[in-house]
Amino acid sequence: MIIVMKTHAEPTNIEAVVQRVEELGYKVHLSRGEARTIIGVIGADEHLLQNSTFEVMDDVERTMRVMQPYKLASRDFSEATVIDVNGVQIGGKQIVVMAGPCSVEGRDMILQTAHAVKAAGATVLRGGAFKPRSSPYSFQGLGEEGLKHLAEARAQTGLPVITEVMSPEDVTLVGDYTDIFQVGARNTQNYSLLKALGRQNKPVFLKRGISGTIQELLMSAEYILAGGNMQVMVCERGIRTYETATRNTFDINAIPALKEMSHLPVIADPAHGTGMWQFVGAISKAAVAAGADGLMLEVHPDPARAWSDGAQSLTFQRFATLMEELRLVAQAVGREI
Amino acid sequence: MIIVMKTHAEPTNIEAVVQRVEELGYKVHLSRGEARTIIGVIGADEHLLQNSTFEVMDDVERTMRVMQPYKLASRDFSEATVIDVNGVQIGGKQIVVMAGPCSVEGRDMILQTAHAVKAAGATVLRGGAFKPRSSPYSFQGLGEEGLKHLAEARAQTGLPVITEVMSPEDVTLVGDYTDIFQVGARNTQNYSLLKALGRQNKPVFLKRGISGTIQELLMSAEYILAGGNMQVMVCERGIRTYETATRNTFDINAIPALKEMSHLPVIADPAHGTGMWQFVGAISKAAVAAGADGLMLEVHPDPARAWSDGAQSLTFQRFATLMEELRLVAQAVGREI
Amino acid sequence: MIIVMKTHAEPTNIEAVVQRVEELGYKVHLSRGEARTIIGVIGADEHLLQNSTFEVMDDVERTMRVMQPYKLASRDFSEATVIDVNGVQIGGKQIVVMAGPCSVEGRDMILQTAHAVKAAGATVLRGGAFKPRSSPYSFQGLGEEGLKHLAEARAQTGLPVITEVMSPEDVTLVGDYTDIFQVGARNTQNYSLLKALGRQNKPVFLKRGISGTIQELLMSAEYILAGGNMQVMVCERGIRTYETATRNTFDINAIPALKEMSHLPVIADPAHGTGMWQFVGAISKAAVAAGADGLMLEVHPDPARAWSDGAQSLTFQRFATLMEELRLVAQAVGREI
Amino acid sequence: MIIVMKTHAEPTNIEAVVQRVEELGYKVHLSRGEARTIIGVIGADEHLLQNSTFEVMDDVERTMRVMQPYKLASRDFSEATVIDVNGVQIGGKQIVVMAGPCSVEGRDMILQTAHAVKAAGATVLRGGAFKPRSSPYSFQGLGEEGLKHLAEARAQTGLPVITEVMSPEDVTLVGDYTDIFQVGARNTQNYSLLKALGRQNKPVFLKRGISGTIQELLMSAEYILAGGNMQVMVCERGIRTYETATRNTFDINAIPALKEMSHLPVIADPAHGTGMWQFVGAISKAAVAAGADGLMLEVHPDPARAWSDGAQSLTFQRFATLMEELRLVAQAVGREI
Repeated sequence: MIIVMKTHAEPTNIEAVVQRVEELGYKVHLSRGEARTIIGVIGADEHLLQNSTFEVMDDVERTMRVMQPYKLASRDFSEATVIDVNGVQIGGKQIVVMAGPCSVEGRDMILQTAHAVKAAGATVLRGGAFKPRSSPYSFQGLGEEGLKHLAEARAQTGLPVITEVMSPEDVTLVGDYTDIFQVGARNTQNYSLLKALGRQNKPVFLKRGISGTIQELLMSAEYILAGGNMQVMVCERGIRTYETATRNTFDINAIPALKEMSHLPVIADPAHGTGMWQFVGAISKAAVAAGADGLMLEVHPDPARAWSDGAQSLTFQRFATLMEELRLVAQAVGREI
Repeated sequence: MIIVMKTHAEPTNIEAVVQRVEELGYKVHLSRGEARTIIGVIGADEHLLQNSTFEVMDDVERTMRVMQPYKLASRDFSEATVIDVNGVQIGGKQIVVMAGPCSVEGRDMILQTAHAVKAAGATVLRGGAFKPRSSPYSFQGLGEEGLKHLAEARAQTGLPVITEVMSPEDVTLVGDYTDIFQVGARNTQNYSLLKALGRQNKPVFLKRGISGTIQELLMSAEYILAGGNMQVMVCERGIRTYETATRNTFDINAIPALKEMSHLPVIADPAHGTGMWQFVGAISKAAVAAGADGLMLEVHPDPARAWSDGAQSLTFQRFATLMEELRLVAQAVGREI
Repeated sequence: MIIVMKTHAEPTNIEAVVQRVEELGYKVHLSRGEARTIIGVIGADEHLLQNSTFEVMDDVERTMRVMQPYKLASRDFSEATVIDVNGVQIGGKQIVVMAGPCSVEGRDMILQTAHAVKAAGATVLRGGAFKPRSSPYSFQGLGEEGLKHLAEARAQTGLPVITEVMSPEDVTLVGDYTDIFQVGARNTQNYSLLKALGRQNKPVFLKRGISGTIQELLMSAEYILAGGNMQVMVCERGIRTYETATRNTFDINAIPALKEMSHLPVIADPAHGTGMWQFVGAISKAAVAAGADGLMLEVHPDPARAWSDGAQSLTFQRFATLMEELRLVAQAVGREI
Repeated sequence: MIIVMKTHAEPTNIEAVVQRVEELGYKVHLSRGEARTIIGVIGADEHLLQNSTFEVMDDVERTMRVMQPYKLASRDFSEATVIDVNGVQIGGKQIVVMAGPCSVEGRDMILQTAHAVKAAGATVLRGGAFKPRSSPYSFQGLGEEGLKHLAEARAQTGLPVITEVMSPEDVTLVGDYTDIFQVGARNTQNYSLLKALGRQNKPVFLKRGISGTIQELLMSAEYILAGGNMQVMVCERGIRTYETATRNTFDINAIPALKEMSHLPVIADPAHGTGMWQFVGAISKAAVAAGADGLMLEVHPDPARAWSDGAQSLTFQRFATLMEELRLVAQAVGREI
C-alpha cells in the first residue's frame, strides 16, 4: 500500500502514520519529495490491510493498493483451475453448457427438458428449486420437491445437476441432491452463505452481484476458497447500468479480465445478461468468442407459460439451433462444445 | 398493465394474448389503432402480474405497468407511518438521530460512545455485532458478546438499540437483545432473511441495496409487511455510480421520492452515502433539509483506530458540533432534533 | 403515447388532458377503469410528442411512449442500409475493419501504418487530425497537416480514410480530405455539428456517447438523417459504468439491440470499449460473433511512444495476428473479413 | 505519478521505464521490494503526464497519480473565487438564485417572468435562446430574437442575464447580449467551445456532463482557465445512474467535494437534477444546506404549456413560496438569500 500525504503535511502527522504502519507489523519506505511525502507500506500480507485505516489520519491525502485484496483467487496463486463434476471438465478445452429451466415447475417438465437439452448437447442440467423473487407474491420455488425432480432427471440422463442455494440453513439439504451449488446474484455478498459453502466438498458456481465489481466477485470467491473449498467457478451475468433497452448490460470485458486476474473458470449467463431471448444467441456466441469456459442457458418447453424468467428462455428448438452455431464459434477460437 | 402489440401483429397472436390475460383472471380492454393494437389488462391485483408473462409472446412489443408492483408499502395504502421504539417516535415531527460505532469493539468503547452520543442529543444507539465484510480476512464482529455490551449500554443510558442481523438463523438471538433489526445493504434482497423478519414483532430498519432501485427497496419492504410486520423504516445509504471521488453517491432525490411513493419513515445514512467523514456534515444537513425523518451516523472515540469504517466516522467532538448545526436546519424546515 | 391518470383524478383534470391532446392535433382513446382513467393518444406522428407536455398536468401520474421518438433511423423505415465508400461495402456480408493510429503524429508514421494495416487486411484507414483531449495540456492533433498526410496515405494505399470532425466550423475543411466523417463520443449530442453533417454528401460514422443510451444514439442519427444525409453508421464504443477494472464497459448487447431497432450498420470499437490492448482481441472476436458489421481498431508502430491512447493500441504484429483470428470467427457466423 | 511493476519484472523492462521517465524530464525514485519494484516519478508538472504512457510498457502493472490532472482549477491554486456580475456576487456569503424559463418563448413571457422572479428575490435571469434538444423535431430556440428579449428584460428589471451558447461560432453573437455564458451538460467536453470561451472576458457557467465525473468537470474548467478567463463557476445538475424513479440523480456529494477540491463557485440545478417539479423544492433546500453558492431554477408562467422542460418548471407562486423557505435554510447554515 502507498500512502500519499498532503502537500506540506505536519512532520508529526507523517510520524504518526509511520508509527501506525509499524504497529501493524509492516515496514515503511519513506520518500520525501519537495512538496509531498509518500509512504510505502512493505510486507507480504497487504491483502490484510484496509485503506480506511490510514485515510482517516490527519494530513493523509490518499492511499493506493499495490496488491489486490484477494490472494487465493488471484492468478498468481495457481495455474488455471479445472473442476471435474462427475466426469464433466469445467475450465478445460471443452466448453460446458449448463441448460434447463429457470424454475423446476414439476416432474414432467424437468424430465422433458433434461432429455431435450441433453439431446442438443448440454452437459449439465440447471433448474431452480429455491427461487429469490423480487416480489413476495411471485412463485418461490418447489423447494425439496424440486430437488427430488432434479435428482430423478440426473438419474435418467446422467447429466450432473446445478441448483441454487439461498440460505446457510439450506446448504445441507441442497447438498444432498445437487452436484454444483449455485449462488445467485443477490447473494454474492451473503457472507453467512459463502462461509457455509467454504466448508462443503462440492463445486460452487458463484454469480457476480447485480452491480458487483469484478474485484468484489473475486473477494466473494476468496471467502469460499479461504474456507477450504477450492472448487469455485465464477459467472458473469450482466450488470446494472443506466441503459434500459436491455434488462442488464452483459459485461463482456469481464471475461478476459477475469481470466487475466484469476485462475478460476469463467461461465457466462446471457439470459440474465440481456433479459431477452432474442439476444441470447448473439451474446452466447460473443461470450464463447471472448474466452468463456462455459455458458448457462435458460431452456423451457413453453416459455410463454414459464413461472419465472420466460422472457429470456429459449424453446427446445431455438436451443438446439443455437448449439449448432456455438459449435462453429467454439472451433474458431480453438475450443470444443 | 398495458400490452403494446407490434405493428401489424397477426390477429391470432393478439387473440392469444387476450386469452392468456383472461386465463389469469383479468379483464381485457382492447384498443385497435390503425397500425397497432394495445391491450389493457384490468383488475385490482396488477401487482401480482409479471411483465415477462406477456413479453415472451409472439408479436408483443412491450408491456407497461400502470400500478406499482408493491401494495402494502405504497402511499395509497396508508397515512404516514410513525413507529414507536421505547418512546422514541420515528416518522413524526421529531427527527431521530441514531448514532454509535460501526462495530462494537468492546465493552468500554461502546459504553463510552453511548454516553457521548446521548449527551450530544442522539436518541437511538447503533453498533454492529455481526459485520458483513467484503474481505474474509477482516474483523467479522464480536457476535453475541457485542449484543450483550449493547444491552448494557441501553441499560445505562436508556437509549434504544439498533444492530444488524445478517442471517435468518440469527434472528432469534439478535431479537433477544435489539430494539430495532437492521438489514444491511448487502441483504436488502436476502429474501430468507426478510421473510424471517416479517414474522417478528419488532421494528425493521431496511437499507437500500448498494445499487438497488427505489422500487426494489419498497418491494423488499413489501416482503416484511406481507409477512405481517408493519413496523418498517427504509434507509437511503448512497448508491453505486461511476463517480469515484466519493465512495458512494448519496441519492438525495430518493428522500422526497420515497416520501411521495410510500408511507414508511425514511432515514438517511450519510456515512455510507459519502464514505468520507469530511462530507458527512454537509450531507446530514442536506438530508434533513430534503425531508428525511432521521439520520444514522457513525461515531467512534478514535476513528483512526476503528476496526471498520473509520474513514467515515465522526469523533465525539465533531458529532456534538454537527448536532448543533442540525438543530438549526431542522428548525428551518419545521422539524425538531 | 399513453397517459395514466392518478387514482380518482378530478374529471376536470382528465378533461384538460383530453383537450390538450386534441389541441396538438391527435385523437384521444379514453379508457375508464374503476379507479383509474387511461388516455391513449392516437396519431402517426407520436415521435413529435414530448412526455413532459403531459407529465406536468394535474392528476397525471405517468406517460408512456408506444412508438420510438425516432423515425428515419428505425428498422420499420428501411431494410438494412449498405454504405459504399470508394468500393468498400459497409453493412453487407463483408465485415469492414478500420485501422490506424489514434492520432496522426507525422507523415512517416501514418504512411508506415497505412501500409501495415492494408497488408494485414484492413479496408479503411483511420487517424485523428483534430483530437478532443480531456486535458488542455495534451497534444491536440496536427490539424490540416494531419489531414494532408491521411490523403497521401490514401493515395499510396487506395484505402479510404476516416477522421474525426469536432466542430461545425471544421466540416468543410475535413470534408475536403476525408471519405467518412467521424463523430466522437463527446460530440454525439453536439447538435450544431450533427446538423452541419446532415447537409453533407459523405458517410458519417457516429459514436455512441460515453454514457449515451441506445435510444439517444439513434436520436442523434435521426438529426443527420432528417437533414437529408442517409449514409450514417453507428458505433458501440463502450459505456461508462461503475466498473473500474476496465476503462469502459463494452456494451455487447447493443450490437444485436441496434440491429433489431435500426437499419443502420453497426461498428464496434473495442479499443475504447476496454481501454486496454490486452483485451482488444477478445472483444473484437466477441463483437464479430455478436453480429457487428465492422470494427474500428487502433494500431500504432510503437504504442509506448504514442501521443495518445497508447495503452489501447495494437502493434503491427498483434494486429496481423488478430486479423487471422477474426477471419475464423467471421466465417463461423457466416461473414467474411 | 507512481508506477507499479509486475511481480518479478525483467530488469531491462524496469530500466526502460526509468529511461522513459527521465526522457520526459522527470526524476525517478526507485523502491525495490522483495517481489515488486515501484517507480516514483518526481517533478512539479505531474498534470502534464498521462498514465497510458507507462501502462503500455512491458511489465508495468499499474500507474497511480499523486497529483490531480488539473492545476488552475484546484483548491491549492487559489482562495475561494468570488465573481462579480453587474454587482451580483457569486461565491460569497450571498446565495445567488438564477431563475427563469428553460426557453425564451416570446417577448411577453420573458418580460413577465423576469418581473415575477425579481419580485420573489432572484438576482439573475436565465432563459435559453439556443436550445440543445435530443429530438430534431423539437423546438430549437428563438436564436438572436430570444437574446434581444433577454436584453430587454434586463433593461426593465436590472437583473443580469445568463443564456446558453452551444457552438464556437455563436460565442460572439451570444456575448453581445449575455452577462454570463452558460455551457450545457452536452457541451461540457466540447473543447472547441471551451477554448473559445477561454478567450472571452465574461463569466462562464459550466455544467457537469450528464455522466461526467467531478474530475472531468474540473478538467473542462481548466480549459477555460488555461485560456486566460478566470471567471468560471461550475454546476451540479444531476448525473445519469441506473435509477429511473427520477430523471437524473442529483449528486449532492459533489457540492462539498467540489468545494474541497476547487476554489470555483458551485451552483446547483435541482430542476435537471430531478426532472420533476415536485422534488425541486426539497433538493433546492438540500443543496443550500450542503453548501452550494447558488441555485439555477426553472420558472414558467404556465409550465403545462412550456415548449421545453415543463415537467421540471415551477409556477410563479411555487417559486415565490420556495424562496421564502430557502431564506430560512440559508440562514440556518450562515448564508443569505
